[in-house]
Amino acid sequence: MTETILNRADPSAERPTDSQPLYRQLADQYRRAIGNGVLRPGDRMPSMRAFMQRHGVSLATATESYRVLERAALIDARPRAGYFVRVPPQAALPAAAEPDLALPGAAQFVGIHSAISTLVSTYQRYPHALNLGGATASPDLYPTGALQKAALRALRARPTLLTAAGPDQGDPALRAVIARRALAAGIQIGADDIIMTHGGIEAVNLALRAVTQPGDTVAVESPCFFGLLQALESLGLRALEIPTSPSTGLAIEALAFALHTHPDIKAVVVVPNLQNPLGSVMPDAHKASLVELCARAGIPLIEDDPYRELVDGVQPPRSLKAWDTDGTVIHCTSFNKTLAPGMRVGWINGGRWHPRIGMLKFAQSRHNEQLSQVVLAGFLETSAYERHLRRLRDGLRLQRERMAAAVAASFPDGTRFTPPCGGMFFWIELPREVSSAAFFDAALEDGIRVMPGTVFSNAGRFDHFIRLSCPSTDLDLADEAVRRLGRLAARMAAHAFKR
Amino acid sequence: MTETILNRADPSAERPTDSQPLYRQLADQYRRAIGNGVLRPGDRMPSMRAFMQRHGVSLATATESYRVLERAALIDARPRAGYFVRVPPQAALPAAAEPDLALPGAAQFVGIHSAISTLVSTYQRYPHALNLGGATASPDLYPTGALQKAALRALRARPTLLTAAGPDQGDPALRAVIARRALAAGIQIGADDIIMTHGGIEAVNLALRAVTQPGDTVAVESPCFFGLLQALESLGLRALEIPTSPSTGLAIEALAFALHTHPDIKAVVVVPNLQNPLGSVMPDAHKASLVELCARAGIPLIEDDPYRELVDGVQPPRSLKAWDTDGTVIHCTSFNKTLAPGMRVGWINGGRWHPRIGMLKFAQSRHNEQLSQVVLAGFLETSAYERHLRRLRDGLRLQRERMAAAVAASFPDGTRFTPPCGGMFFWIELPREVSSAAFFDAALEDGIRVMPGTVFSNAGRFDHFIRLSCPSTDLDLADEAVRRLGRLAARMAAHAFKR
Repeated sequence: MTETILNRADPSAERPTDSQPLYRQLADQYRRAIGNGVLRPGDRMPSMRAFMQRHGVSLATATESYRVLERAALIDARPRAGYFVRVPPQAALPAAAEPDLALPGAAQFVGIHSAISTLVSTYQRYPHALNLGGATASPDLYPTGALQKAALRALRARPTLLTAAGPDQGDPALRAVIARRALAAGIQIGADDIIMTHGGIEAVNLALRAVTQPGDTVAVESPCFFGLLQALESLGLRALEIPTSPSTGLAIEALAFALHTHPDIKAVVVVPNLQNPLGSVMPDAHKASLVELCARAGIPLIEDDPYRELVDGVQPPRSLKAWDTDGTVIHCTSFNKTLAPGMRVGWINGGRWHPRIGMLKFAQSRHNEQLSQVVLAGFLETSAYERHLRRLRDGLRLQRERMAAAVAASFPDGTRFTPPCGGMFFWIELPREVSSAAFFDAALEDGIRVMPGTVFSNAGRFDHFIRLSCPSTDLDLADEAVRRLGRLAARMAAHAFKR
Repeated sequence: MTETILNRADPSAERPTDSQPLYRQLADQYRRAIGNGVLRPGDRMPSMRAFMQRHGVSLATATESYRVLERAALIDARPRAGYFVRVPPQAALPAAAEPDLALPGAAQFVGIHSAISTLVSTYQRYPHALNLGGATASPDLYPTGALQKAALRALRARPTLLTAAGPDQGDPALRAVIARRALAAGIQIGADDIIMTHGGIEAVNLALRAVTQPGDTVAVESPCFFGLLQALESLGLRALEIPTSPSTGLAIEALAFALHTHPDIKAVVVVPNLQNPLGSVMPDAHKASLVELCARAGIPLIEDDPYRELVDGVQPPRSLKAWDTDGTVIHCTSFNKTLAPGMRVGWINGGRWHPRIGMLKFAQSRHNEQLSQVVLAGFLETSAYERHLRRLRDGLRLQRERMAAAVAASFPDGTRFTPPCGGMFFWIELPREVSSAAFFDAALEDGIRVMPGTVFSNAGRFDHFIRLSCPSTDLDLADEAVRRLGRLAARMAAHAFKR
């Protein structure tokens, strides 16, 4: 097995990363092998001596490589036995169910805003509840100090950032560095093909406004991020929910069928990488089919892609836009989840609707404020962003592993879920008898905020699901909270059974 | 005359401003008297001795008061004769014409975006042209250094501003200080009645989205800020242009007639203070009538009020919202014109549509980024903002006076305009024979950018108007540019006459 790794670990097979030190390059090779399943949980790692010989490196480099892997919780040292690929501390739990492929009718739902408002006003009465209902990582996983320094530098160098109006599409230096970085997502665009937006949600709104009229139908994933359902409601659009798999994302055949039977579908919105809330990542073949299907049907495909760089592994997957040949895909993303939730910086490439989106953005909110953009441009130019992403992914993986173990250990029979391969969300199916609305209320009483499944659909499909997010890098805190939730679910299931 | 002033100058008649030094309070009393016309151009000011006696102040205080008035170009020293109220260096030019009160039909114009795009792509070919077509003051009139320092302080004190998500409605401290300051505009609201927005334009968009459906008609001023026409176009709304006076703003009788004859009007949008481009300020009685008219008709009145604090005088006029008793008025404003064009901070009070506007803002772009809000909150808490506003108003008045003189001296017969009592815009009617589109092109060739009247209407009413804005605190530069424009207009008028 070790030989296989060494052969596969030939650096020339991968995009070279000469900017990284050797120990990091070697650690990344092993990280990839573990991620690929080439090295499996419990496999023995090469001894230090073997590692040094095979890669022609010093003891210091070998030690440092192993240290990186150990800190990333990928390998464990066993006393007097050497290093082993870590066995994730996760007990068995049935995987999430694959979706029923039957389509509900398209619905213009006008209650999601008020459902969310009710939710918000309820949890605001519990300001001290531990938040497992959020959508960003723990604050200490973001590079606060480095961004603060970058902002201080930018302000000193360019004092008029606050008082001079900026260019319409956004800061040119930021757009240039984003265009270069987009190559890693498989996206070939220039700085002029990018418009900066107020977070990814403004980008998605602009995309919808560019290609639809009120009353039109939009195909969305099911379950669907409630923020998208809110945007649809506020724009007077109808949502057609397409079944979506917890492992491979949107069911392409179901979409093909829907496009055939619903000629009023004017757009498709998909989160291809770490779907919210499922956590699914579409395989490349599915991505290619989806883009081709939409291009053939002449339907704009709106890609909401804020989580791509949170997918585990050395090289995050590509965006749908990578397969786009004729401008069918409108690509929307942001730095809210990966870097700086407080800065509200997103961007959009509008494909063949780019000029119209530029006009809508100008008419709606003009250019973004300047300082955040200049700070980001400076930060993204350096290797600090890549280092930060590795640390963020490692931190989230540790949290997910520990939480997955706690879920498996404490939730009652009938619970199902598939741990995602990145990001911060768990989409958990509770036993049929447990309503997530009642669970939400009871959990708040117990000092914990969760997100009930009811707001992830207009069609009432997910009443016994909850979305949990990783609340804190304090693993014991999260572990204890998840166990309390598990006991609560067990009590509620038992109580329902007794009635 | 002087006695009259002294009687009127009783500080108890005005809102006390104890935070200001005495010399400033006295200067403000005289500034107000000059603004009111109580002291007229050419009137003699009291002698220093008389001033000291009458106000019971020292020579130093008296000297300082006069120095403030002299720097603000309100009084002139004449050798061996004393101080006199300044005669503005403005030759006679016919005042702008009052509007024809006939209404055009409501039009869903779908060309304003492309007209603006053509304009933009044309002037982008002349990047070095002097910009008299802009909509913010000269950069050196904004408090760059003070805001920079405030931002550095905020970043050091609160490093997580960039990485932690903020509250939905905006920073609570900023909303609290805005609510306190709104009292000066006659607006009584609390911090919770305010939602921070990305500039005033997002606020106006949200207001329109809250109260209209695509296809509805919105009554607007004529001429109308082209940004509003763009917003209407992008939202699929029709514009009904209501005649608007260069001196008193929207013609209320014409609006009353329109509401009677066009039952499909779903909103009215008005810039009551320093209308863009006219520069008119509605008299209080008109403001009261307008609010009452809309309240009686049950039509939401959207107030776009970014220029209020740029009106000359000690105490800026009140907002329409001051007369609102039942939530009919949606108040929109920003700090883009008065303080910091680069920060893109605006706010909205949605009147009786406030909850719906809150939902739309959340669905469209979530909360504003944090840093700008915290910087503004700190700045607005101090007296620095008031000091800055005085300096900004004084600087703009000097520029307007010099430009008005240059217009009067150099533009051909048939030119008409009314100098506004604040702000940065001149709305100039050229001789009938001069097309503003041709004038725009010819001026660019000559190195000067202006705004042609064609984009201020959907109904093609202002083809021989231009909007000029104050380009620079270098008065000679602006003077020379305006004189070149005048000679150009004269040549074009003569050429048209010869044909």
